[in-house]
Amino acid sequence: MEKTIREDCITIFKAGIKAVDSYQAVKTHLRVEGNYLVVADQKYKLTDFDHIYAIGAGKATASMALALEEIMGDRLNSGLIIVKYGHLSNLKKVTIVEAGHPVPDEAGFQGAQALLELAQACGKDDLIICLISGGGSALLPLPVSGISLKEKQETTRLLLNCGANIHEINTIRKHLSRIKGGGLAGIAYPSTLISLILSDVIGNDLDVIASGPAVADKSTFEDCVKIMERYNLFAKISDTVRTHLQEGAAGKREETPKPGSPIFKRTSNVIIGSNIQCLEAAEKKAKELGYNTLIISSFVEGETREAARVHSAVLKEIINSGRPLPLPACIISGGETTVTIKGNGKGGRNQEFVLAGGIEIAGWAGASVFSAGTDGTDGPTDAAGAYADWRMFDKARKSGLDPYHYLANNDSYHFFKKIEDLIITGPTNTNVMDLRLLIAK
Amino acid sequence: MEKTIREDCITIFKAGIKAVDSYQAVKTHLRVEGNYLVVADQKYKLTDFDHIYAIGAGKATASMALALEEIMGDRLNSGLIIVKYGHLSNLKKVTIVEAGHPVPDEAGFQGAQALLELAQACGKDDLIICLISGGGSALLPLPVSGISLKEKQETTRLLLNCGANIHEINTIRKHLSRIKGGGLAGIAYPSTLISLILSDVIGNDLDVIASGPAVADKSTFEDCVKIMERYNLFAKISDTVRTHLQEGAAGKREETPKPGSPIFKRTSNVIIGSNIQCLEAAEKKAKELGYNTLIISSFVEGETREAARVHSAVLKEIINSGRPLPLPACIISGGETTVTIKGNGKGGRNQEFVLAGGIEIAGWAGASVFSAGTDGTDGPTDAAGAYADWRMFDKARKSGLDPYHYLANNDSYHFFKKIEDLIITGPTNTNVMDLRLLIAK
Repeated sequence: MEKTIREDCITIFKAGIKAVDSYQAVKTHLRVEGNYLVVADQKYKLTDFDHIYAIGAGKATASMALALEEIMGDRLNSGLIIVKYGHLSNLKKVTIVEAGHPVPDEAGFQGAQALLELAQACGKDDLIICLISGGGSALLPLPVSGISLKEKQETTRLLLNCGANIHEINTIRKHLSRIKGGGLAGIAYPSTLISLILSDVIGNDLDVIASGPAVADKSTFEDCVKIMERYNLFAKISDTVRTHLQEGAAGKREETPKPGSPIFKRTSNVIIGSNIQCLEAAEKKAKELGYNTLIISSFVEGETREAARVHSAVLKEIINSGRPLPLPACIISGGETTVTIKGNGKGGRNQEFVLAGGIEIAGWAGASVFSAGTDGTDGPTDAAGAYADWRMFDKARKSGLDPYHYLANNDSYHFFKKIEDLIITGPTNTNVMDLRLLIAK
Repeated sequence: MEKTIREDCITIFKAGIKAVDSYQAVKTHLRVEGNYLVVADQKYKLTDFDHIYAIGAGKATASMALALEEIMGDRLNSGLIIVKYGHLSNLKKVTIVEAGHPVPDEAGFQGAQALLELAQACGKDDLIICLISGGGSALLPLPVSGISLKEKQETTRLLLNCGANIHEINTIRKHLSRIKGGGLAGIAYPSTLISLILSDVIGNDLDVIASGPAVADKSTFEDCVKIMERYNLFAKISDTVRTHLQEGAAGKREETPKPGSPIFKRTSNVIIGSNIQCLEAAEKKAKELGYNTLIISSFVEGETREAARVHSAVLKEIINSGRPLPLPACIISGGETTVTIKGNGKGGRNQEFVLAGGIEIAGWAGASVFSAGTDGTDGPTDAAGAYADWRMFDKARKSGLDPYHYLANNDSYHFFKKIEDLIITGPTNTNVMDLRLLIAK
């Protein structure tokens, strides 16, 4: 029985990520019809443009660019995208720069400068198609003048480690960046700028995805100061960064472009894939496999192990009283949680979710929990996630492992590696946060 | 609109607690039919018994005893119950002892001794009806020989403050007590012992409710040692308590009575009210008020503010995509969360849930969150809980309050007092943990 539920989880997961495949998503949302480029419900006359360029950043943009090249053919002049090391495809016109993620590096800095120069050179008769996917923030590291890349990196590292959410991290990033928070739109103006976006943020807020390079920024320097104070980070970051943010809050620095700015008259942003689409496809597959299903939310965030407890509580109620679903039941959720690191183990939010969930459902016969990153990677590991069921403790005991110990040490990776319940998929060509499945059979 | 949703919440809450009213629950589950006492689906011949006594402990047992007196009339000989200070009713035959809760005190200690003596004096031709409700653990403080009440109190205090759940707290309590963990059944043996239980624990585990005075104990001294180590409490508690638990784990102390012991042949335990019954009645009322409803779980536990984030995520999805319910929607959950106290404010888990939830749903038009303790008290406050909606920040701003600050300081009570969103009900005559409502309209 265990093997069947585990296999069901993998089947459901694969159906979910197939629905948001980055290559396919571009082909679905963009096509050439005669003399027109059709993007979602918008039409652009191709002869209006002297040149068409592709730019972009994100882990999945190589396959997005491949689809774009196939669609545009000779109409595409050239382009430049920045991807995470190894996330490549075989492109003809678009140059690929590989760079560091989640911590930005010098290669990303060089790439971002080149991308900015390309956009800056475009005029009102040019069309820029910008491909954005998860990781775009880290892969476009172009700090404002006076702040070094190293200082910006250190700020990002501190924010990641203190448990700040992606909204908070991006608010800071936007105010330390030349490209983010509408910066790219400002640079590309007055050319036409169409962004195709694979969303990796909760709620698909355009100004948050990749820190909104082509979107008006509602966040302010004041918000930055509040966030830094909330996590006590002013004592830890460089004087230059602190001063920049504090002077900004005092009105001494230029704010990011705000809603209503003419900069955004020729920009459009199209979400071509998102977490809820992935959950819906997963639900469809789970139904095909015979499960009663419930998508509880694509907005799940917060501390991973606590989110796992609430999810497990739903599963217990199902087993106990058939509420809110009768057996066999599959609860589906998405979004992206955070891990406040207290130990020195190795893991990721998905693996930690499953470890905490496995502890909760111990002894609840028929209960299973699965969680994986839709991009195929979870934290600094080679796994996408993990799987556990009500017998996890028995498996752990046989291997001489104490699940509580591994959880306390944030060492979910080594725990599941030893009991052979890691989920390893390799890169998936997409990135729409996480997919969680809680099954009772 | 705000007033309407707030009023709806209170109406739904009242319907929920009415369904688990302690007085009514006894009348529903116990009656005299001719020469028989009928308890749920069991019949007892009244002439088989020389004497019938009532004992019990818990915040709601005074009204349970009132119902019992009314049902039994002259057949009841006498009795003794221990209640929280002020939780009284006008009884004729049953003596009421008022004692300390949540922290046990000398009055509870004296009451527990008297209760133990009453049970000990009963023989095989006697019937003891034991009334149990929430608070029973704290109100029956009879430490094992060699450990003082003060040491046991200090252990409870440390466990409450470190974020241990009620299962963990009770495991320790049972191994430091003469009454709990089946101890009472051992003392009452060979008399007949019927327990009527208003459940205040997740999953209604009989051996956990009031620390299972009449139930075989599956937990062990080894479990106690693990719990104390999990929260690093051995360094903080007295040597006597540490030694008792460690010697127990080494097999040098007598374990609590385990499943299969003949002690339990004449005991029966009947759940007469529980959290899920409350949630179901709340759901019925919510439907009457026009809401689409979903009970997500009566098993919710874990860190309060994080549970609030997951609940809010469900509400956001409802507003965003109509999943899992279309508007107007009412999500219902139960169970009992914990608060790891880091600040020095005043509050309770329900008020903190609403504060954290109110922060999450800020700006989500139509979203509201309500949480209250079914016993009418939440932490060391005079409120049962609180209410917040998407405009909580606006209200806070007008009063000059920063919600984040109050949350960080665990000061939800003063926050909601100032913006006039406390829910104050007074004692409710029941106690089946908490009721949470998340409404989107």
